[in-house]
Amino acid sequence: MRAALQMASRGLGRTWPNPAVGCVLVKDGQVVGRGFTQPGGRPHAEVDALARAGQAAQGATAYVTLEPCSHWGRTPPCCDALIRAGVSRVVVAMRDPDKRVDGRGFQRLRDAGIVVEEGLLEAEARAFQEGFLRRVTRGLPLVTLKLAGTLDGRIATARGESRWITGPAARREVHAARARHDVMLVGSGTVLADDPELTIRDLGLPSIPRVVFDARLRTPLGARLVRTARETPTWIVTRTGHRPDALTPFLEAGVEIIQSPARPGRGLEPRAALGALAQRGVTRVFCEGGASLAGALLGAGLVQRVMWFQAPGIMGGDGLPAVSGFGVEALAAMPRYRRASTRVLGPDVLSEFEEMP
Amino acid sequence: MRAALQMASRGLGRTWPNPAVGCVLVKDGQVVGRGFTQPGGRPHAEVDALARAGQAAQGATAYVTLEPCSHWGRTPPCCDALIRAGVSRVVVAMRDPDKRVDGRGFQRLRDAGIVVEEGLLEAEARAFQEGFLRRVTRGLPLVTLKLAGTLDGRIATARGESRWITGPAARREVHAARARHDVMLVGSGTVLADDPELTIRDLGLPSIPRVVFDARLRTPLGARLVRTARETPTWIVTRTGHRPDALTPFLEAGVEIIQSPARPGRGLEPRAALGALAQRGVTRVFCEGGASLAGALLGAGLVQRVMWFQAPGIMGGDGLPAVSGFGVEALAAMPRYRRASTRVLGPDVLSEFEEMP
Repeated sequence: MRAALQMASRGLGRTWPNPAVGCVLVKDGQVVGRGFTQPGGRPHAEVDALARAGQAAQGATAYVTLEPCSHWGRTPPCCDALIRAGVSRVVVAMRDPDKRVDGRGFQRLRDAGIVVEEGLLEAEARAFQEGFLRRVTRGLPLVTLKLAGTLDGRIATARGESRWITGPAARREVHAARARHDVMLVGSGTVLADDPELTIRDLGLPSIPRVVFDARLRTPLGARLVRTARETPTWIVTRTGHRPDALTPFLEAGVEIIQSPARPGRGLEPRAALGALAQRGVTRVFCEGGASLAGALLGAGLVQRVMWFQAPGIMGGDGLPAVSGFGVEALAAMPRYRRASTRVLGPDVLSEFEEMP
Repeated sequence: MRAALQMASRGLGRTWPNPAVGCVLVKDGQVVGRGFTQPGGRPHAEVDALARAGQAAQGATAYVTLEPCSHWGRTPPCCDALIRAGVSRVVVAMRDPDKRVDGRGFQRLRDAGIVVEEGLLEAEARAFQEGFLRRVTRGLPLVTLKLAGTLDGRIATARGESRWITGPAARREVHAARARHDVMLVGSGTVLADDPELTIRDLGLPSIPRVVFDARLRTPLGARLVRTARETPTWIVTRTGHRPDALTPFLEAGVEIIQSPARPGRGLEPRAALGALAQRGVTRVFCEGGASLAGALLGAGLVQRVMWFQAPGIMGGDGLPAVSGFGVEALAAMPRYRRASTRVLGPDVLSEFEEMP
């Protein structure tokens, strides 16, 4: 199952709206096929692994990280493929909560005489699948908040100078992390301040959609994200009720516009805006700030994971804070996370945090 | 020599104005005596080790972390003790830059026919001795800045609530670090906000003087630091020119008053104030903030080491910053440090930093 989870991770960030699944087929103690959900979400992992195994799948055990699907979607049900290939036993890490599956896959396999076992490495599989699970069960994507700042939590000087607070090793890590998500997200303030490109460089991987939360449509038409929208998708989530001619130039530049309710005078309602992304199938969002967006998401309890890049400098209170105020009045109300790992990246340190259970 | 440095560390924070020195006597491959500068600064390490070795010191090699003294201070010169004991070889990590020694110790030993070698583990010995070296060569103490905050560098909520951002393991580490310094230092804002006691708890070690930088004498007479001044020394460094009757109640409470120049409207001149501590023999200062004092010391380039305790929470821009603004306009002007270590302390992480060479 560890090998199957390893396979699944190859698709992470590239299978949405489908979950990234891994499958390993074992017969007589030998691996006879491996597969993972392919970019774009199909073929599914089981079909990929069965194709590689060929005749050897007959009588094999399939280790799958998520319950095989039992319904016709854009592909035939994986259960049928497993049955047809003559697999004798299926070991699954976790049930698929998607209403179209949710135990029906197990039933279909058992009805065909296949031995089914559930729950192997379930905790690991759940953590891995968190984005898909949130989308299916709550209509929200997983949000990873990435922030890079000084020891005292500053991301730029008072004049806005932020290149480069962290070093090249930290920046490479950011690009790798982007690739494990479905979309990147920034606030319009970051677009105005930094005019970022938000691509995945030097990894041989395709770029992923760039999303801007921009209630007031402040994004300039000359911004890199707008000018490159035909090569790499750019979505702007903005408030409902703009006059159509305000949207036209963005649409003409190839930008997708998503309308979502705003809070009077306070920008988008973050839960609704993330919900609009989930409705489009997005399971994993990589948010790179800035401070206002980070504060809004944290204040609404919508951040599940934090990647904190810490540079060994101290800027003092004149510098721009990493996170704007979001109404923490008492220490007990402050969001706290569980540290999952700490790694040294050249002069910098990356600590990764997860939501407390 | 490593063993001698280890011995030296037993006295760290308790030997000032003298340096903390370690000495190990070896004869025929056997350790025959170990010693370190005792609390209060005497006896010196060599004398301590010779007393333990007794007759066995005859013909032994002495490993000493700092050049043995050659002058009469409060004790007779250690060189004479080594000569009298019949030591045949002395290996020293580094020369003592104190003008009363500075090579004279080596000369005196050589004149007595003893083989002298210098420079073994010199870099380690220098780092260890940094407080004493700064006092002797620059008239300033080593300053370790300790800060404990959230990921985003906040040390308290907007309402001033700061207990407890970090957990018990981090707090124990703070007490141990205090004990390795000669004095603790805080600004008057911290006294007003937190009324700290600044003791060393649960380590079986005596407390060390508490120093307040307080240009305007804002410290309340009812503050814990004032009320406990007869048990553990409290020094207030304040601006020159107060009316004597403003000082009287502090003196009557047992507080020592040190007067040092202030910058008009901006608090004490930090270099002069630290210099006043060095004049009193202080070699190692443990500064625990608050934000204004931290900013003033950083802005003046007076912080050599940083202990940063990072709690896994995010408070946002409403929280109080760890370090006040100190005029960093360009990223290139920001003080950067070399990370020396990172340790996990329960939910928190301690990273220690050193001045760049």
